[in-house]
Amino acid sequence: MKKILVIGAGRSATVLIQYFLDNAIANDWHITVGDISEQLAAEKVHGHERGRAIAFDVFNESQRREEVGNADIIVSMLPASMHFEVAKDCVEFGKHLTTASYISKEMRSLDEEAKSKDLILLNETGLDPGIDHLSAMKLLDEIRGDGGKVEHFESFTGGLVAPESDDNPWHYKFTWNPRNVVLASQGGAVKFIHNGKYKYIPYQRVFRRTEYITVEGHGEFEGYANRDSLSYREVYGLQDVKTLYRGTLRKPGFSRSWNAFVQLGMTDDSYVMEGSETMTHRDFVNAFLPFSLTDSVELKVRATLLLEQDDRLMEKLKWLGLFENTVIGLKNATPAQILQHILEKKWAMKPDDKDMIVMWHKIGFVKNGQKYVTESSMVVKGDDQHHTAMAKTVGLPLAIATRMILNGMVKETGVTLPISKDIYAPVLDELEKNGISFNEKTYEVEEFTT
Amino acid sequence: MKKILVIGAGRSATVLIQYFLDNAIANDWHITVGDISEQLAAEKVHGHERGRAIAFDVFNESQRREEVGNADIIVSMLPASMHFEVAKDCVEFGKHLTTASYISKEMRSLDEEAKSKDLILLNETGLDPGIDHLSAMKLLDEIRGDGGKVEHFESFTGGLVAPESDDNPWHYKFTWNPRNVVLASQGGAVKFIHNGKYKYIPYQRVFRRTEYITVEGHGEFEGYANRDSLSYREVYGLQDVKTLYRGTLRKPGFSRSWNAFVQLGMTDDSYVMEGSETMTHRDFVNAFLPFSLTDSVELKVRATLLLEQDDRLMEKLKWLGLFENTVIGLKNATPAQILQHILEKKWAMKPDDKDMIVMWHKIGFVKNGQKYVTESSMVVKGDDQHHTAMAKTVGLPLAIATRMILNGMVKETGVTLPISKDIYAPVLDELEKNGISFNEKTYEVEEFTT
Repeated sequence: MKKILVIGAGRSATVLIQYFLDNAIANDWHITVGDISEQLAAEKVHGHERGRAIAFDVFNESQRREEVGNADIIVSMLPASMHFEVAKDCVEFGKHLTTASYISKEMRSLDEEAKSKDLILLNETGLDPGIDHLSAMKLLDEIRGDGGKVEHFESFTGGLVAPESDDNPWHYKFTWNPRNVVLASQGGAVKFIHNGKYKYIPYQRVFRRTEYITVEGHGEFEGYANRDSLSYREVYGLQDVKTLYRGTLRKPGFSRSWNAFVQLGMTDDSYVMEGSETMTHRDFVNAFLPFSLTDSVELKVRATLLLEQDDRLMEKLKWLGLFENTVIGLKNATPAQILQHILEKKWAMKPDDKDMIVMWHKIGFVKNGQKYVTESSMVVKGDDQHHTAMAKTVGLPLAIATRMILNGMVKETGVTLPISKDIYAPVLDELEKNGISFNEKTYEVEEFTT
Repeated sequence: MKKILVIGAGRSATVLIQYFLDNAIANDWHITVGDISEQLAAEKVHGHERGRAIAFDVFNESQRREEVGNADIIVSMLPASMHFEVAKDCVEFGKHLTTASYISKEMRSLDEEAKSKDLILLNETGLDPGIDHLSAMKLLDEIRGDGGKVEHFESFTGGLVAPESDDNPWHYKFTWNPRNVVLASQGGAVKFIHNGKYKYIPYQRVFRRTEYITVEGHGEFEGYANRDSLSYREVYGLQDVKTLYRGTLRKPGFSRSWNAFVQLGMTDDSYVMEGSETMTHRDFVNAFLPFSLTDSVELKVRATLLLEQDDRLMEKLKWLGLFENTVIGLKNATPAQILQHILEKKWAMKPDDKDMIVMWHKIGFVKNGQKYVTESSMVVKGDDQHHTAMAKTVGLPLAIATRMILNGMVKETGVTLPISKDIYAPVLDELEKNGISFNEKTYEVEEFTT
């Protein structure tokens, strides 16, 4: 019997754990689910005969080492910063590890030792990073195998609310970590490459440099740039690419409206606001506006953002309750924390709401002197509040890859990510059987860009 | 004979050193001027019988300790970050120290030991910080001594080009450290207090939240906020003040134009641009703009900044040569370094140009139920490129305070700044004899603010 240890039983682990339990008897697996909350772990295991739920504290060294030592493979669904302690134990005890997080420098440092022990520490095998790698590498390998030279690569992913649950003027709800949404694109200028030239976008322009994208059958979306566009240039074998751009998808109009918060200074997480506990929503907005004995907060917002009186952006801000005299009640909070608090009141998913993941690639290539574009898109909707699109698209690739490692189907060792055909092809095949698939189309173009 | 050691013989030390030499025989002083460049030190001493010029390296410990040990007082004109090594020696050898820099945490840590040895380490005694403290404390003490309750305090200072040397559309030249100008207001949101409410301005709004100020006889200026408005609330005894705002003065229109650089991302000093050495001015601008097969860099700037076709801002940008195909030639440079390089070609002071310092305070107070405002302004012009307004206003207060300490006129000890009447009154008196004086007017108002 093979033993799987899943660490972390939060929202993103639901589908992952269910996959292991559903396949446990056929594969002769036993699954231990550990979470800081034993109750949460027990809910996910729901008394399955091959499952065991335990209270698990990653900082409890003796427990951690004992559980890692007893397992055959460890799946870490911990926050990215906590993987390393587990990974060190895995290498020491000779256990494989899978995660859905970006490879950190610390993680990378274990590569040589892992290889020497024939272990794989497979990371970036969720949605983004994860399915983006799998699907991009499949397209790139096909195009290059067919004699095409790739010159243009764009890739966008978004976690959105499904159209049937979209009932607010922002066409957005928090389907994932709200803090990441509020802090998006902060921490340094965006750097990418466009037609062979490096381009830079400062934070204050990111949400005004958007691109419109149409996904057949799902309408129009807009994309803003991610900070890390160039980090996969070598990993994907795109050293000579002329355009490389990665971004985040929203419904059209979101970015222009979000930019209001950026311009006013409400997304700043670097300082604490005086009196945040007793401040109202309206006080919060007013703290970013000039003092006036006479002018309303509303008028000052319009004047600051240069909005005409009938600009619908004001309706979006009003709908959020930004101008209301509701007390915030957060002690020593930063602007970003207060903004998140206000947004969470309105952008929360309701119990019956469904989320939706959209991923879109555009790959431009030259073959026999002709330019072509392949577009590839994936749209996944959640079933309910447990089996969300996010939980499916994060959990299934990780679960499938974990099964493949357990079954000896993966020869690669060391600290790695899923870019070889041995991994991406079977994972994509099984994802398709689970309703997660891509629509592709290829057409001739005059230019890749205008 | 008293011995003065001046460390640093740069532009800001010219008037300071001249003051010591001019008064050397009458006071029985000997002045040693040390600089990393012996030639620069020698130029400033110009063979004066009471002067000695030496090559001096602050990181040469044995030389530093020997020279400090031989002096009675040390005047450090080093960059602010280098004072501490000197200050530690001063305390060890029992010597006084004066500087024109903000008190650092390290400097503050020497307070107790300095006091125990009856030493004064007097800082912030240049222009800004320096004359701003002297003049503000004089006004505040007068108002409070006369029964007024101060509710409103604004203070602005600017280093500008004198009107007779103002021959460019920006009405600005670099009269001081260009790097500080390019990086102005970066590093965190501005925080100040206005009518009892805390206000915050993010970097991307600082240059669009300006205030117009009229200085009688010198016309109109505009002020943008400094980051540190609140740091002197307690030092000035303004704990209950309702408005506290400190800023920097420029000629009207400067800030709106400077904001173009901020919005485009050209003032960012956090990353190195690819290929900065071979890039042209025009390439530099284009790196911050969307790619286009057809549109010119000029049109893209206008579209990005939402400028109408006859907006004079475009003329200012063209005048700087921003759209020219001139090679930059700086290796591994940040946007801020490249922008500084381009600006220095056009904003350099010509040999006959004169600079100008403008300082302006507005203090609102209540006396017998009536609100009053006192405005106080100082305008100083340079004589020539050596005796600049900046060298006079930085060097003279520091020289005068140093003389007072040498002559036993200062009783205060420890790490301090010039806010007591014992210091500010005699320094302001002697500054006035040297043509550095304030114009004051007081008038009744309905409100301090609108």
